[in-house]
Amino acid sequence: MFKRLLIANRGEIAVRIIRACQELGIETVAVYSEADKNAMHVQLADLSYCIGPADATQSYLNMEAILTAAAATKAEAIHPGYGFLSENADFAEKVTDSGLVWVGPLAETIRQVGDKDVAREAMLAAGLPMTKGSKPLKNNEEAPILAEEVGYPVIIKPVSGGGGKSMFVINNENELLNTLQIIDVTKVPFYFEHYIAQSRHIEVQIMADNYGNIIHLGERECSVQRRNQKILEESPSTALTKDMRERIGALAIKAAKSVHYTNVGTVEFLMDVKTGEFFFMEINPRIQVEHAITEAVTGVDLVRRQIRIAAGEPLNKDQNDIKIVGHAIECRINAEDPDNNFIPSPGMIDFYHEPGGPRVRVDSGVSAGLAVEPYYDSLIAKVVVHGRTRGDAIKIMQRALNEFRIDGVKTTTELHKRILADTCFCTGNIDTQFIKKRLPVYEQTPPKPKLKDTQKELANNLQKLEQYYI
Amino acid sequence: MFKRLLIANRGEIAVRIIRACQELGIETVAVYSEADKNAMHVQLADLSYCIGPADATQSYLNMEAILTAAAATKAEAIHPGYGFLSENADFAEKVTDSGLVWVGPLAETIRQVGDKDVAREAMLAAGLPMTKGSKPLKNNEEAPILAEEVGYPVIIKPVSGGGGKSMFVINNENELLNTLQIIDVTKVPFYFEHYIAQSRHIEVQIMADNYGNIIHLGERECSVQRRNQKILEESPSTALTKDMRERIGALAIKAAKSVHYTNVGTVEFLMDVKTGEFFFMEINPRIQVEHAITEAVTGVDLVRRQIRIAAGEPLNKDQNDIKIVGHAIECRINAEDPDNNFIPSPGMIDFYHEPGGPRVRVDSGVSAGLAVEPYYDSLIAKVVVHGRTRGDAIKIMQRALNEFRIDGVKTTTELHKRILADTCFCTGNIDTQFIKKRLPVYEQTPPKPKLKDTQKELANNLQKLEQYYI
Repeated sequence: MFKRLLIANRGEIAVRIIRACQELGIETVAVYSEADKNAMHVQLADLSYCIGPADATQSYLNMEAILTAAAATKAEAIHPGYGFLSENADFAEKVTDSGLVWVGPLAETIRQVGDKDVAREAMLAAGLPMTKGSKPLKNNEEAPILAEEVGYPVIIKPVSGGGGKSMFVINNENELLNTLQIIDVTKVPFYFEHYIAQSRHIEVQIMADNYGNIIHLGERECSVQRRNQKILEESPSTALTKDMRERIGALAIKAAKSVHYTNVGTVEFLMDVKTGEFFFMEINPRIQVEHAITEAVTGVDLVRRQIRIAAGEPLNKDQNDIKIVGHAIECRINAEDPDNNFIPSPGMIDFYHEPGGPRVRVDSGVSAGLAVEPYYDSLIAKVVVHGRTRGDAIKIMQRALNEFRIDGVKTTTELHKRILADTCFCTGNIDTQFIKKRLPVYEQTPPKPKLKDTQKELANNLQKLEQYYI
Repeated sequence: MFKRLLIANRGEIAVRIIRACQELGIETVAVYSEADKNAMHVQLADLSYCIGPADATQSYLNMEAILTAAAATKAEAIHPGYGFLSENADFAEKVTDSGLVWVGPLAETIRQVGDKDVAREAMLAAGLPMTKGSKPLKNNEEAPILAEEVGYPVIIKPVSGGGGKSMFVINNENELLNTLQIIDVTKVPFYFEHYIAQSRHIEVQIMADNYGNIIHLGERECSVQRRNQKILEESPSTALTKDMRERIGALAIKAAKSVHYTNVGTVEFLMDVKTGEFFFMEINPRIQVEHAITEAVTGVDLVRRQIRIAAGEPLNKDQNDIKIVGHAIECRINAEDPDNNFIPSPGMIDFYHEPGGPRVRVDSGVSAGLAVEPYYDSLIAKVVVHGRTRGDAIKIMQRALNEFRIDGVKTTTELHKRILADTCFCTGNIDTQFIKKRLPVYEQTPPKPKLKDTQKELANNLQKLEQYYI
């Protein structure tokens, strides 16, 4: 096992990784930007190292600074968390080239699953069910033809990047032509996918060692989204029967094997609500925000596993060892203002008291007296509950959210209370349009991009995607 | 199920009960003393009712005030928690006489197990193994004869009361005569028990419904004590084999059945380390501080169960349904000064941040900005961890305690860190003298009672016992 590990991240996931390391007896190195010098992850790590100014491009995205920190502190491995450099194949390569261990899949795997076009090819070849998709658009002129081939409604997506930003649903040729007025497909590569009108986002957690052993740990239902961003997740999904669970699990393993996947990862699917069919979306080659609900229902510690697998341990578990017990829900608490179009709400936390008691877990990276910085993702805490049944989990989450007190910044806690009280949610009758349909007040139209600076905005969006990419 | 329940308690256990009620959909009534008007349990309950001044005899021990609060708020049931009135048979009777439901065993059972002499008789009749004991002493003159019959070393205990205070170990007749100079056995009833030189405190959690169904939920090892007060508990015990676990479980059920026990409760045993024999000590007819470690390893919610049983639900579980999974440890965090003979350390909590992340549960009744009151028990938080193995649990507890930050009052956190780092503790080689033997700096001689005010002090101690009785 490693003696010392560097965490190339911040916030709650950096704290999560530190906890796993401490439990495994591994020393930790926190890296931090100038804005984060008092941050929780810096307080909890054994060593810490400043890697640059607040702006993430100069710190948490600064590969050379992080590698320098690793060399200076004699770290043996780097855990990238999620976001930032976690899906950057070049960084993974640099890490291994420096003689360090990368806690994640091979750089080649990251590269393959990161390019949606390449990934779709690989998955089609492996026999994964896919929604019909186009090749990347070469020019605006061929767009109507390709869209027609894919079949309306279509969704236009950037070839690289993910996380749901910069995607538009287009219902007909007229809407397409309007969209093409805004974007120039020759500058940022885009492609079309057929859009399923009513779908659920269901993803499968997988775990693979370096010796070809691979299992899945059941699914997560992530259909409760706001503008394509997950806000509440649960496991298991109310949409799946035992047979469907086995089928989607087998699909996930097939997908992962086709790209020689190692370490933990997630295979995301869309489920057509009408037909129950699954369609491959993408593979996320890293730990996910919502990993804790899988930990709750399976009892497997995914972050410890990431580290143990990276250190060369075999899985020593097979599929039959995985039992799904009870029902888990996660609510993401973001420092955002739900009454003001969810703009980030940075600032000093004046008072902070997390819920406690049985069956409640909180993962956070903040405390009273610390500031929520404006430079980074607005996720400040995750509340995870584990009930006997789904109804039980809902009750536990409600009482936990009522206990949670955060003063000084606005948060999304009230939105979660509204979701948990919704009758459609309570009966499990949800799809990716749930917020739009049931709580429309929270899903305001995003400000329309203006023609003049559209290209710049899109480029910005894509850059941000690489930072946040959750 | 009840619509509304009153909690006749304060602090962490009141908060614990509120959580259980909220998860069951029951409204809660907090009662509070004037000192507790801002307390956490008052903040979290649906309704609250002031029952008197800070002094517990005038508030939390004031039966009439509590019954008045229950009537005024239309509560249907009363949960007494631990300590205060929880083992007061008269109060249990008054509660049921008022037409309310008492969340606990029958008043008659409480009365029977509360008088040690009666309880010993009942247990002897039921065939429980007991250390040799005497009848209550009638006068000082017969003491040497009775002590000789029981066999030195003996322990002299008050007939009623528990929790480890007011007990003295006496090794020979000379020590006995000295002790009799201090106490007058005609004023407070005392009796002798043979004292086992090297013993472990092992207790069994039981659960019984109102229809004669009874099961046990494994044991808790509570040998880590300071002056007979438990400070760290774990489940399962490293001392028991599977056979021994079955044997002590069967003994516990036999003991409980002999007093027609209903609801949850604990049967405490001493285990002779040399012989592995178990000896019945007492039955605690209430929830215990350390119940959460049993919840961790069995997955059973004991407080919800208390309420459901009191509401008339049958157990719907048998012994085979209970599986002990992993290993749990609890550390009691008291506001006491370990460097100053553990005197209570009341005061304002300036900063408070609980540990989080996987496998850690914190039950507390405080937050930043609240005062630890001098009038009540000094327990402010319980940290409970659940590991795969005992070694894993120790590591998790160490990292959790390192995260816990409480500023403003002194706490026992450092003592726990010392215990967890001790090689005897880590190998499971512990007995009730562990602290004395391994960390003697923390077990200073209690101040010797002075002859002149001894009788008053003992009476005071006994009164306090009834309050704290944990």
